[in-house]
Amino acid sequence: MTHNIAILGASGYTGAELIRLIATHPSMTIVALSADRKAGMAMADVFPHLRHLSLPILQKIDDIDFSCVDLVFCALPHVTSQAVISNLPADMKIVDLSADFRLRDPDDYKKWYGKPHAATDLQSEAVYGLTEFYRDQITSARLVAGTGCNAATGQYALRPLIKAGAIDLDNIIIDLKTGVSGAGRSLKENLLHAELSEGAHAYSVGGVHRHLAEFDQEFSAIAGREIKVQFTPHLLPANRGILATVYVQGDAEKIYQTLSDAYANEVFIEVLPFGQHPSTRHVRGSNFCHIGAVADRIEGRAVVIAALDNLTKGSSGQALQNANLMLNLDETMGLMMVPVFP
Amino acid sequence: MTHNIAILGASGYTGAELIRLIATHPSMTIVALSADRKAGMAMADVFPHLRHLSLPILQKIDDIDFSCVDLVFCALPHVTSQAVISNLPADMKIVDLSADFRLRDPDDYKKWYGKPHAATDLQSEAVYGLTEFYRDQITSARLVAGTGCNAATGQYALRPLIKAGAIDLDNIIIDLKTGVSGAGRSLKENLLHAELSEGAHAYSVGGVHRHLAEFDQEFSAIAGREIKVQFTPHLLPANRGILATVYVQGDAEKIYQTLSDAYANEVFIEVLPFGQHPSTRHVRGSNFCHIGAVADRIEGRAVVIAALDNLTKGSSGQALQNANLMLNLDETMGLMMVPVFP
Amino acid sequence: MTHNIAILGASGYTGAELIRLIATHPSMTIVALSADRKAGMAMADVFPHLRHLSLPILQKIDDIDFSCVDLVFCALPHVTSQAVISNLPADMKIVDLSADFRLRDPDDYKKWYGKPHAATDLQSEAVYGLTEFYRDQITSARLVAGTGCNAATGQYALRPLIKAGAIDLDNIIIDLKTGVSGAGRSLKENLLHAELSEGAHAYSVGGVHRHLAEFDQEFSAIAGREIKVQFTPHLLPANRGILATVYVQGDAEKIYQTLSDAYANEVFIEVLPFGQHPSTRHVRGSNFCHIGAVADRIEGRAVVIAALDNLTKGSSGQALQNANLMLNLDETMGLMMVPVFP
Amino acid sequence: MTHNIAILGASGYTGAELIRLIATHPSMTIVALSADRKAGMAMADVFPHLRHLSLPILQKIDDIDFSCVDLVFCALPHVTSQAVISNLPADMKIVDLSADFRLRDPDDYKKWYGKPHAATDLQSEAVYGLTEFYRDQITSARLVAGTGCNAATGQYALRPLIKAGAIDLDNIIIDLKTGVSGAGRSLKENLLHAELSEGAHAYSVGGVHRHLAEFDQEFSAIAGREIKVQFTPHLLPANRGILATVYVQGDAEKIYQTLSDAYANEVFIEVLPFGQHPSTRHVRGSNFCHIGAVADRIEGRAVVIAALDNLTKGSSGQALQNANLMLNLDETMGLMMVPVFP
Repeated sequence: MTHNIAILGASGYTGAELIRLIATHPSMTIVALSADRKAGMAMADVFPHLRHLSLPILQKIDDIDFSCVDLVFCALPHVTSQAVISNLPADMKIVDLSADFRLRDPDDYKKWYGKPHAATDLQSEAVYGLTEFYRDQITSARLVAGTGCNAATGQYALRPLIKAGAIDLDNIIIDLKTGVSGAGRSLKENLLHAELSEGAHAYSVGGVHRHLAEFDQEFSAIAGREIKVQFTPHLLPANRGILATVYVQGDAEKIYQTLSDAYANEVFIEVLPFGQHPSTRHVRGSNFCHIGAVADRIEGRAVVIAALDNLTKGSSGQALQNANLMLNLDETMGLMMVPVFP
Repeated sequence: MTHNIAILGASGYTGAELIRLIATHPSMTIVALSADRKAGMAMADVFPHLRHLSLPILQKIDDIDFSCVDLVFCALPHVTSQAVISNLPADMKIVDLSADFRLRDPDDYKKWYGKPHAATDLQSEAVYGLTEFYRDQITSARLVAGTGCNAATGQYALRPLIKAGAIDLDNIIIDLKTGVSGAGRSLKENLLHAELSEGAHAYSVGGVHRHLAEFDQEFSAIAGREIKVQFTPHLLPANRGILATVYVQGDAEKIYQTLSDAYANEVFIEVLPFGQHPSTRHVRGSNFCHIGAVADRIEGRAVVIAALDNLTKGSSGQALQNANLMLNLDETMGLMMVPVFP
Repeated sequence: MTHNIAILGASGYTGAELIRLIATHPSMTIVALSADRKAGMAMADVFPHLRHLSLPILQKIDDIDFSCVDLVFCALPHVTSQAVISNLPADMKIVDLSADFRLRDPDDYKKWYGKPHAATDLQSEAVYGLTEFYRDQITSARLVAGTGCNAATGQYALRPLIKAGAIDLDNIIIDLKTGVSGAGRSLKENLLHAELSEGAHAYSVGGVHRHLAEFDQEFSAIAGREIKVQFTPHLLPANRGILATVYVQGDAEKIYQTLSDAYANEVFIEVLPFGQHPSTRHVRGSNFCHIGAVADRIEGRAVVIAALDNLTKGSSGQALQNANLMLNLDETMGLMMVPVFP
Repeated sequence: MTHNIAILGASGYTGAELIRLIATHPSMTIVALSADRKAGMAMADVFPHLRHLSLPILQKIDDIDFSCVDLVFCALPHVTSQAVISNLPADMKIVDLSADFRLRDPDDYKKWYGKPHAATDLQSEAVYGLTEFYRDQITSARLVAGTGCNAATGQYALRPLIKAGAIDLDNIIIDLKTGVSGAGRSLKENLLHAELSEGAHAYSVGGVHRHLAEFDQEFSAIAGREIKVQFTPHLLPANRGILATVYVQGDAEKIYQTLSDAYANEVFIEVLPFGQHPSTRHVRGSNFCHIGAVADRIEGRAVVIAALDNLTKGSSGQALQNANLMLNLDETMGLMMVPVFP
């Protein structure tokens, strides 16, 4: 038996990544693809790497017949996503990849995204999509909100440590390096090859990156009190991959043990032996997240480093993992592909 | 039912790529891995991207028990390969990825590889591994010789054209651009990131690249007379991918039609609509080969461009495709992964 | 004594490259910079790498006082360039970097650029800016037309050979690889890092690239009869650098000797020892062009390979070299910087 | 008048960078180049980008006649450097680029470099080569020790802040990203293009990188008490450039003002407007260091980011700046080249 899938916003990178994954998924069939400005085009002309697949022609969302759709992936920009999802059939299972349903508090949404949320009922219904920590709720959810890719990486490194009280909650610094595909397929000068290759720079410095809203929400909820982390993302001359170097205060061995225990039964989270640390290139194209913990020479300090592929485990892979749960399929179905190295 | 697989030379890039592919293959199980200098090590320490897999410890070849092995992939350097394969059980199915069994004529081997072949009986037994053109022989073969990755790319562009007499056989130029992983994981100054990135250069200019031996052998056999092509490979600042730009003389539409007809039923060979041409990034990490034909402004001239991933369709993917045939499995089994873009 | 320089179109890559070069030029001072849409901005905000320089604020062209300007570099898009230059003072020395004045025949211009030339008098006055071959005319010119960067590279490889009759004029193929900065700082999807890095593809295949107009014009003029070459450009995942691999028919040693003799006294053109060939990374950031010639295994065939930096020798360095001549300065002034490697 | 220069260790990247800079220096002439294993070779064969220069043939050090040499740049590996410099004429001016003379305390040297220093007299004579902070001592020094490239970057960000007491001395974290050329031209698997491109990873995590010895020595000396910073370097898929993201506690505006005042008269140190931060690509190939300071959303926290080119300002440019001082030349001579972007 197969489940019929629609992907809204199929002309962006997360849409293409969903198609890549679902194309070989044994229990899903793509029955509709939307891309408003490219409606009428074949996917092969938008993404030639999908040329060999038999895929539906791109449609406008309004032209899609949702009556035969079992689950919708919504890979649209935020704000647009709210509007579109409000108009989908009320019982439709939805995995949203935008930022629209990540924050539970409408005030937080307004603060970080600059305008009021227009679908607060959906916002309160949505389950936060960090699979390993919201598995049960996701399984029974109708609407799941995919996490920010940076937010996912930082949380994999930190959630078990905050929960276990293994680190000082007031001295957490996340220095993050991300590949450029996380910024999407948008025409911005700073995303040009000539502007990006052969160098590095920080962006959203000083605590203004929107994924901080997720850190604030989630870490504070775990700790039972407000937690604010410092967070500086950097853009790498690479397409895929996030490396989060997290500076914490606490006992390094305890930190390692806490992480190791927390993820012992998780298929996609690999905690490296104590003292080792990961590289983005060893998770590329896969749904795996590698985490390492190292003691610093300064007593009571440690570095935790997490790596994942922003398009896979950081967004579309995560989305598929959640969809598997929502459809009562094996959580790992279609997601066991090995990282592509070199 | 599963087939037991051994991979000899598992610490190189083609070895790692075989593991990547076979790890999710439904009818193969890796039971032995060799790497002489790294014997005793875990694959996770040699290739951390394989960390999540349960794989055998690396062994010396002599320590492998071949009695339970159904098929051997031999990813060793040439010369070494001859010696090792000579000592394998006489009825063992073998897919060799080295250059040792690609040339049928011992004199050719000596000319291009600089020393006499030491296993000429095996050489005469071996079937050339370009699957789409040697499918029947491969199915019943014991020993299959994987092609050169450049040689494969050029042949996909040219074999049907030579066979159909669609082009002038005395004016064929292959200008090829290849990623660096084709050179393997060897410590050479010209393979350092600082020497390679942000630039381009040709190598083996003037007709001295060894893959010419395969072009000579195969094209001459098809045409029934000696054919010599011009061939200039270039090294790209990229890890994976080969783009062969082939300059031919003939009617462009007939050339397109010939290619289109020849590959109409081939799963992995995609001929693009007339006038379009491929990019290496749209086949990355996959077993697909994209081919395009374009007419030149000069009457009677055309350009045929072929793109594939040197580690997949150019070597390890091809090897697995052949192994599937040799084990009477579906030829595409384990090989339908979608290209990884971006 | 210093010459006062204005640069029109200073917010693009060739404009920035002109500033880079002129900033340390001992006899030139930049007195005006234009960028219509960015008028009012400081260059440091448009190109932070120029931050340490004392430069004029960006202006609209109409706001520039040309009375104190000795020479204008015009780095505007074609069509715009025609209009702007028509309005400059009639005796102003001008080096134009656009395509507007490269072609001498108005019909050719219309054919390749799609609309009639609007300043045919200027077109007939302009001198083609390939310094080594138009030196005398450039010295006394008022308006010099910078060449296409691809066109320059191909011509350095071929002009002496065509003139000497050292090659078959009907069998010339230029397979060219170029870095992305040649496409400028424009917002196009195919110039995004995620679309370009880690791969290669051809473009303008089949004889439609506009730089062919320059090859046609120049090669035919040298030979005294129509010459048409085949030309396929490819986009590299690199910012700077052009590598032209030129396939010719003729005696390789004579070809080498012809090139070696032709450039014996040229400061910026380095002919490598016979059999060697160049790399783009060894000319990066400099005004040098490296050329090599190699014999093919096929009798009577040879490969000539030329490399230069598209932004320097291919455009802004060439422009400065020409300006030096026009101002009766030493031709090499400000241009002897060593290539930046690695 | 010109000064005669010898460069020992001319076959590495810092040696080549010295040649690049000195080739256009108006008051220096290279009279000798050493490279033991490549003695007898022409530089054009070792570094083809230097092809157009008239340079001495590579020699063994023992074959160099130092009687006509005014200053020696020693770009040899540490340990080797000690031995070689001990044998140079006693009054020879020397700029050493190795790690051998950076640490003043022999015990520190032994601790970080694993063996006793063999020339402790030279060690005590040597002046630490961070020009802006040791200018007077360098001017009169015979032996100057070039700093580590990472150490230079971190110090530019932090020295004025520590001196002014503008930050908490016990909570300094330096998260640094560096291009690969800093690791030299050595044949190591982790420096191969296929291992490095398209990704990122940390190295020497936990306080074991040797440049920490310089931070410890210098920061403690400034503060008058022991200071230990946390320091995590990361390897970027880029050839040149270091970006140091420094997390400090203190008033951001005061931090900005302190940096701005400290470097107000420094030609090569550019402090960006408050709230802005630098990119490595905007200093590439130049001797400039860009520094920015940004306030964090958490009261009392700030981020200081410094960028420089590891081969230029981080080593060979710094070395030349020091040599200029030692030879009573203008400090900036030969060093004003503009960064190469894109």
